[in-house]
Amino acid sequence: MKLPILEIFGPTIQGEGMVIGQKTMFVRTAGCDYACSWCDSKFTWDGSEKEKINLMEPEKIWQELNQQAGGRFAHVTISGGNPALLSGLGAFVDLLQANQIKIALETQGSKWQPWFVNIDELTLSPKPPSSKMKTNFAILDNMIASLKEKQKGSCSLKIVIFDLTDLEYAKRVHLRYPDVPLFLQVGNDQTENVDDDKLLHYLLNRYDWLVQKVMESKALKNVRVLPQLHTYLWGNKRGV
Amino acid sequence: MKLPILEIFGPTIQGEGMVIGQKTMFVRTAGCDYACSWCDSKFTWDGSEKEKINLMEPEKIWQELNQQAGGRFAHVTISGGNPALLSGLGAFVDLLQANQIKIALETQGSKWQPWFVNIDELTLSPKPPSSKMKTNFAILDNMIASLKEKQKGSCSLKIVIFDLTDLEYAKRVHLRYPDVPLFLQVGNDQTENVDDDKLLHYLLNRYDWLVQKVMESKALKNVRVLPQLHTYLWGNKRGV
Ligand code: SF4
Ligand code: SF4
Repeated sequence: MKLPILEIFGPTIQGEGMVIGQKTMFVRTAGCDYACSWCDSKFTWDGSEKEKINLMEPEKIWQELNQQAGGRFAHVTISGGNPALLSGLGAFVDLLQANQIKIALETQGSKWQPWFVNIDELTLSPKPPSSKMKTNFAILDNMIASLKEKQKGSCSLKIVIFDLTDLEYAKRVHLRYPDVPLFLQVGNDQTENVDDDKLLHYLLNRYDWLVQKVMESKALKNVRVLPQLHTYLWGNKRGV
Repeated sequence: MKLPILEIFGPTIQGEGMVIGQKTMFVRTAGCDYACSWCDSKFTWDGSEKEKINLMEPEKIWQELNQQAGGRFAHVTISGGNPALLSGLGAFVDLLQANQIKIALETQGSKWQPWFVNIDELTLSPKPPSSKMKTNFAILDNMIASLKEKQKGSCSLKIVIFDLTDLEYAKRVHLRYPDVPLFLQVGNDQTENVDDDKLLHYLLNRYDWLVQKVMESKALKNVRVLPQLHTYLWGNKRGV
């Protein structure tokens, strides 16, 4: 089955979340069922790059990865958009694993796919109030229960934090799923900023703020607080 | 048994390594069997803070942790110096675990302790050539074999990289222990620098350099490349 692919690039580092720093290739799928107010990859779903979408068979994506970085990677990150919209991704996951490639994938957790259980590092990233989206906790409950039962790899929750309301949301999520490792990430509301040095200092200040808030909290004891490292290195540039 | 403790502080984030970003308390022990050229905690072994060392029973350390941050932590990081010099740390590890506290510990891997198997996140940080220290691979081989067999938690290797010779050393280590997750960390040779902004840009440049080198490498495929996040936030300040 052909998959709508928007970008294939790397190797580079994963800048955020549970495998932050990991050397990886990125495969970005097109399409999302959400429309987060601060989405930093609107181009995957707002139609602005529709003509750039490539419909590719898994075998073709694998060839492209090898053409770009053959022999230099052992890890692939599938991102979006929401890659969980694509039932056909299962075949690509199988193909990568047949080639001893580890796979990370991020989704907001709005839709289950049976191939989730084969992902090595699955990040569920429910969206906080600032996104203007609403979490369907019934779906997320089922998803986390199924993963606990059947997933071979590991799974974590990641919540992007812009303000104190988001932080309260994170506490509720943490209370609901206390056993699932929770990553809190500094939100970037300056995705149009091209002054890298200003952006860096702004984001470091926001990170400092988030760290302080979490350090004060009794509800958020066993959590990890992280920035997006790629923005420190490369600002808002894409494809690095 | 009393333990020589130099610092107890937090909660703060773990700035580096396998649990980067983790909310944690720090307990720093005094004493080291190495003398790395670029050691960023020379005060633990060079005699300069001898009068600050507190000889403390595990129960007393636990009290102090709770006095500073009772109810706000679920994770303790034991660092040094080399905490593996202290056979008596086992009792402290037991005490923390009896109180449902997770424990991370870092050592260069020069000395085995039976209580290693109880550490939740153990970082072995063998020192590259720039340190002027020499790795005893026979000891490290045994340590890693014992951990594989008996450790309940997880373990990783972390190597600080200052130059290309260090990177070659990292490749050899990775080849020797391909199954152990490997973290490469940017070396900070500016530990006396108090100009935080200059330091930040210097360290980001070094991080960028290290990322590029690893991305080009075929030997270093499945690795993670990380900075020290606390230096981005707080420069070379101690106790934050
Ligand atoms: S779920 Fe992700 S890709 Fe979709 S709109 Fe939200 S931030 Fe953007
Ligand atoms: S092993 Fe660690 S504490 Fe000891 S001298 Fe080296 S860097 Fe410093």
